[in-house]
Amino acid sequence: MRDFFNPAGVAVAGASRSGEKLGNVAIANMRRFGYAGRIVPIHPQADTIMGLPAYPSLESLPEPVDIAIGVIPRELIPDFIQQCGRAGVRKVIVSAAGFADAGGEGVALQERVAGLAREAGVRMMGPNSVGTISTESGFVTSILSLEKLKKSPLSIVAQTGLFAAGLARWIATTQHFGLAKVACLGNKADVDELDILRYYRDDPQTGLIGIYTEGVRDGRAFLELLREITPHKPVLVLKGGRTETGSRMAASHTGSLAGAPEVYRGALAQAGALEVDSLEELFDLAKALQYCPEPRGPNLGVVSVTGGGCVMAADACYRLGLGLPPLQERTLQEAREVAPPWASLTNPADIWSAVETGGIGRAYLGITRAMAGQDDVHMLMPVFTLVPESDFDVAEAYGRIREEFPEKPLLACAIGGSGEEYREWSAAMEGLGIPAYGSVERAVAAAAALYRYHSWRTEVMRRGRG
Amino acid sequence: MRDFFNPAGVAVAGASRSGEKLGNVAIANMRRFGYAGRIVPIHPQADTIMGLPAYPSLESLPEPVDIAIGVIPRELIPDFIQQCGRAGVRKVIVSAAGFADAGGEGVALQERVAGLAREAGVRMMGPNSVGTISTESGFVTSILSLEKLKKSPLSIVAQTGLFAAGLARWIATTQHFGLAKVACLGNKADVDELDILRYYRDDPQTGLIGIYTEGVRDGRAFLELLREITPHKPVLVLKGGRTETGSRMAASHTGSLAGAPEVYRGALAQAGALEVDSLEELFDLAKALQYCPEPRGPNLGVVSVTGGGCVMAADACYRLGLGLPPLQERTLQEAREVAPPWASLTNPADIWSAVETGGIGRAYLGITRAMAGQDDVHMLMPVFTLVPESDFDVAEAYGRIREEFPEKPLLACAIGGSGEEYREWSAAMEGLGIPAYGSVERAVAAAAALYRYHSWRTEVMRRGRG
Repeated sequence: MRDFFNPAGVAVAGASRSGEKLGNVAIANMRRFGYAGRIVPIHPQADTIMGLPAYPSLESLPEPVDIAIGVIPRELIPDFIQQCGRAGVRKVIVSAAGFADAGGEGVALQERVAGLAREAGVRMMGPNSVGTISTESGFVTSILSLEKLKKSPLSIVAQTGLFAAGLARWIATTQHFGLAKVACLGNKADVDELDILRYYRDDPQTGLIGIYTEGVRDGRAFLELLREITPHKPVLVLKGGRTETGSRMAASHTGSLAGAPEVYRGALAQAGALEVDSLEELFDLAKALQYCPEPRGPNLGVVSVTGGGCVMAADACYRLGLGLPPLQERTLQEAREVAPPWASLTNPADIWSAVETGGIGRAYLGITRAMAGQDDVHMLMPVFTLVPESDFDVAEAYGRIREEFPEKPLLACAIGGSGEEYREWSAAMEGLGIPAYGSVERAVAAAAALYRYHSWRTEVMRRGRG
Repeated sequence: MRDFFNPAGVAVAGASRSGEKLGNVAIANMRRFGYAGRIVPIHPQADTIMGLPAYPSLESLPEPVDIAIGVIPRELIPDFIQQCGRAGVRKVIVSAAGFADAGGEGVALQERVAGLAREAGVRMMGPNSVGTISTESGFVTSILSLEKLKKSPLSIVAQTGLFAAGLARWIATTQHFGLAKVACLGNKADVDELDILRYYRDDPQTGLIGIYTEGVRDGRAFLELLREITPHKPVLVLKGGRTETGSRMAASHTGSLAGAPEVYRGALAQAGALEVDSLEELFDLAKALQYCPEPRGPNLGVVSVTGGGCVMAADACYRLGLGLPPLQERTLQEAREVAPPWASLTNPADIWSAVETGGIGRAYLGITRAMAGQDDVHMLMPVFTLVPESDFDVAEAYGRIREEFPEKPLLACAIGGSGEEYREWSAAMEGLGIPAYGSVERAVAAAAALYRYHSWRTEVMRRGRG
């Protein structure tokens, strides 16, 4: 699968001299991402496209490339696949739609194309595939113009093209993390989740995997592979088509067979994968799993400047099975240094009285640090409200806690505040490796997933040794 | 309760000449919001504060004001309440903390203050209360600097001060809607939810109510009042302290008694209120209930440029009990005018093939409009991916549909895209009165709440007439 992500050279059919076709977008993306391999436009007449020497066909190349991408109408695909075979191009990404996704004659056309690829010894991603992104090599086949992505351990395999399109742009422009690799498989006439997951399993750039699937052909092999991966790399799964209508839609969308919902739910958990219910949750958890160290237990220490934040955090912890250990005498003693004598400090700690007495920075730092020193507090969650008047240097304070207690996961959340303040605050937090959330419930859910994954992993490791 | 929102004059204790105290912030807020009533600073020495004539005590005012706000330390509160009584000031908001919220002697202090207020014939909001906002009068007692809010039918009553602080700022700077009135009650030693809800029930500016409560004193009266309000104005309830730890926290936070979770859940639904699980959900639903007409049934018509969006929408509809009726022959005929002949159009409609054939604007407009014309499609949900290359004027297209089908709720969502694109897109949508969401699941949840409320309301009305 390496050539689908890090090829030495790529041929692109579907770029024009005037530069306005989708193939041109793919070439521009590769340049923006710094792809250093050879890019060869294929065009019946053009000599050069975007300054690159063009060739009339794959067979006319002086030496074969590792992969061809066909951003051309579906009628031209059968010939294109055969060209790959004759020219010794062993990988192809087919972006055209109108195959199994369209039903009717599209189904037959897909079978024909898949057969041609098999005969020609060509591995095919698609049809109806937006292809791949690799921040390692800068190889990007997306036909939507993408902003350059940062590197991060998160790799995605998905049926939908969203992850190499709108979602990649959302990550590039609004998130502090980036991506390692993305594969958008489309109709999966040949390359499927198993192929990609085996590659990600062994890929040193991939430390965490997100899967969006509407159904896998071989559920048993899929689960077996997950069991193999999850002790080493966390895996998040968003299963589309889990419901009757959804799975009817999934079938018409990519022509794949959607498994029964109940098969997935339990089996995924047993295989150590974390099932999520939405894209929002997928990225919420991916952030925590990328940034945080392993929690040693299920207990949170919560610090909030508003009582409402404390109550909401406590509710969410209870719902998701996280603990809130009472503060021990030593912790209270330390915390009382920054609080008025009459303040009743508990966990969650409403620190408003300490803020009134000694200022917001001193209150957050002093009480979070006191909690961090307590053994049975395994994770820390400061809840903020973002205020314009504050001269509280949140990055300085939490940078110190991060350094003093590197083994305790810190997750932060903010309630309210202006859009601009939220962006600044979350950038400051995530710059320290502290995942930041816009809601208490989402931060607690991320902490719960962190604990769930690591306790499962510890158990598996223990059994492996035993 | 009118004087808590629209007083003719207000006295503010706790502002200083140098302008850096919290009382000064409250005065600045009122000026920014255009409060036209008289503002009288109370200060032992100053002649003027912020250009306003100041008085040494409430009793030295030439004529009494409707309300006094005391942004002063807790030790000074008993005297301040007694001053109110002697000066004929009949309403007071006490912002100081350190009463029942602090436990211990704070509890006794609160009882004493409440007793003094009763004796003096003064209605008190608080202690530990950030007070109120009224966009009608511009009266704002918040001690956090607020951006001016737009008017909207949404009124809030909450124990927490968040709604007159960080959340008000979040609404002012990031949301298209605004607020009618906000009351942040704090410890509720006197004024409580029932007082405020009775006022909102009769307030012509209030068309929709959001409640955050950690427990009401008289649950029976609360539910009875809700039953009275909900047929006329939707009510959203976020119950804090629903769980064991949460309710212990709630008790220490405002000293109120938190009801058992199970008492609330069923009872609220029977009273026609919509219970929500987070602030995020509260505002998601508030948006839909403010913007949308009444849906005539539970069926959605979904249009998406990505198959993944279709599948996620179908999953969410199934989970939340919304229907996706198949497209009728007439609808298909109309939709096929903008789609290639081989496209398989269903509901949700994956319109990618139509986009390839005739462009994105024509595809969204043509297929959404065809669906809107089908009788058993009661609500419409376009799912977008935000792309930079697009010249699709989404406001123009959906403005037309909004005009042609004013009786059908439209809810929009977008998957991915840059932060800037999302802000532009949601502003365009909400400018048309179409609530916009950043996730498919949240948009479907809002549609489901819309249907749940209106079907309950229809049933109540029918029984009322029967």
